[in-house]
Formats: sequence, C-alpha cells, structure tokens
Amino acid sequence: MEKVNVVEKLRLFSDHWHPRIVGELNGQFVKLAKLQGEFDWHRHAQEDELFLVVSGTLTIKLRDRDVTLEEGEFFIVPSGVEHKPVAATEAHVLLFEPKSTLNTGDERTQRTVEDLEWI
Amino acid sequence: MEKVNVVEKLRLFSDHWHPRIVGELNGQFVKLAKLQGEFDWHRHAQEDELFLVVSGTLTIKLRDRDVTLEEGEFFIVPSGVEHKPVAATEAHVLLFEPKSTLNTGDERTQRTVEDLEWI
Repeated sequence: MEKVNVVEKLRLFSDHWHPRIVGELNGQFVKLAKLQGEFDWHRHAQEDELFLVVSGTLTIKLRDRDVTLEEGEFFIVPSGVEHKPVAATEAHVLLFEPKSTLNTGDERTQRTVEDLEWI
Repeated sequence: MEKVNVVEKLRLFSDHWHPRIVGELNGQFVKLAKLQGEFDWHRHAQEDELFLVVSGTLTIKLRDRDVTLEEGEFFIVPSGVEHKPVAATEAHVLLFEPKSTLNTGDERTQRTVEDLEWI
C-alpha cells in the first residue's frame, strides 16, 4: 500500500513488449510497458483493455481504422476487437486490464509473457 | 470507441469534488475530477479506488498516515480503508473504480454525486 511514481517505475526496465505490474485493484492490474516496433494482431475475447500513453506516440491499429495516441491520451479496446499496437519510436504506456489478460490475447505465441512480475 | 485526451476533457468542467466519467471497461469507470479543499472521511466497503494525479498535489489522509501524490503518481486505496482527500490548491485527478462506487463511500451525504455524467 505505497504510492507509485510512474516515471520512476519505468526506469526499472528497458525491454519492449514486456509489461510489468505496478498495481492491483478490483480484479484488475495496472501495468506499465515500453513499446517499440509492431506487435501482433490479437484480441481478448472477454477483456476490455485500456492504453494510456505516458510518453511518445502509440498507434493502435484496428481492422477498420487507426487510433493514434499522444501523451495524455487513452483508448479502450473493447473485448473481442482485433488490434495491433505499433510504435515507430519508443512509447511508454500504462495499461489497465483484468488480471487474466495475456499480452497476446486469446492465443499464446512466442511473444506471450507468462508470470508477469511486479515492480 | 473514441480516444480520450485527458487535458481536453478536464477543460469541460470546473467544479470541485464532482467526478465525470470518461471511460468504461470491465465493470469499472475511468473518471476525472478537480479537487480543492478538504473532502470528508469515507470508505468503500467493497471497492478499491485508484487516484492518479494529472496535475497539482493531492494528499490522501489515512487514519495512520498521509500519502502525498504529485503529478504522475498514483495510490490505490484498498476497500474498507478510511480516507480523506485533501488538496491545498486545485488538483486534477484520474480515478479508476467500480461502476458502483459513490464519491462519498458507503454513506450518502450532501456531497454525494448521484447520476454521474459522461463527458
């Protein structure tokens, strides 16, 4: 039950597409991640997922359009909606999603991060 | 299913201690609020509540200590824990909490905001 400084937590890791847990409430996790390059198309059948950009620019590709987020902007991907995060340069994001959510959605792939760690 | 710019949304209202809804996911609301002065002691028996400071300084008084949050810092008040938010000067905060959460906790008071509106 300590406060969390988002920028200080982000200094604790440098790898991309590997979220860390920084908070837990009501069955949800708050996570931080550094994103750069293109992730895979995926969806979460049962889980809505919030992306809040802390720094940089993140594009969330949807099948019918792109949503581009700058610092201080968030987007909620509804459950079942296919999406593909893309960051041309490094973006730092805060995620809010159920504890059950896998980063690769309903399919496990080489990029799936199991056993997410707390920082 | 549109993106949300936090600062732009905060420009849409000016009253204190009256959260607005800006997002919904997994049975939770994302809210924004402007806080200034002292709120009442309260608790939420069943609901954890996250306060993320967007600008300014917010102190969350607990019965045994104070937690002071600056911009970019968050704190999760666990369910059942009495707390009293205090902001000497205006603070802007993002809240994550279950849709059922009342701003005054388990008791309805003159400061309870019913029928929260979306902005």
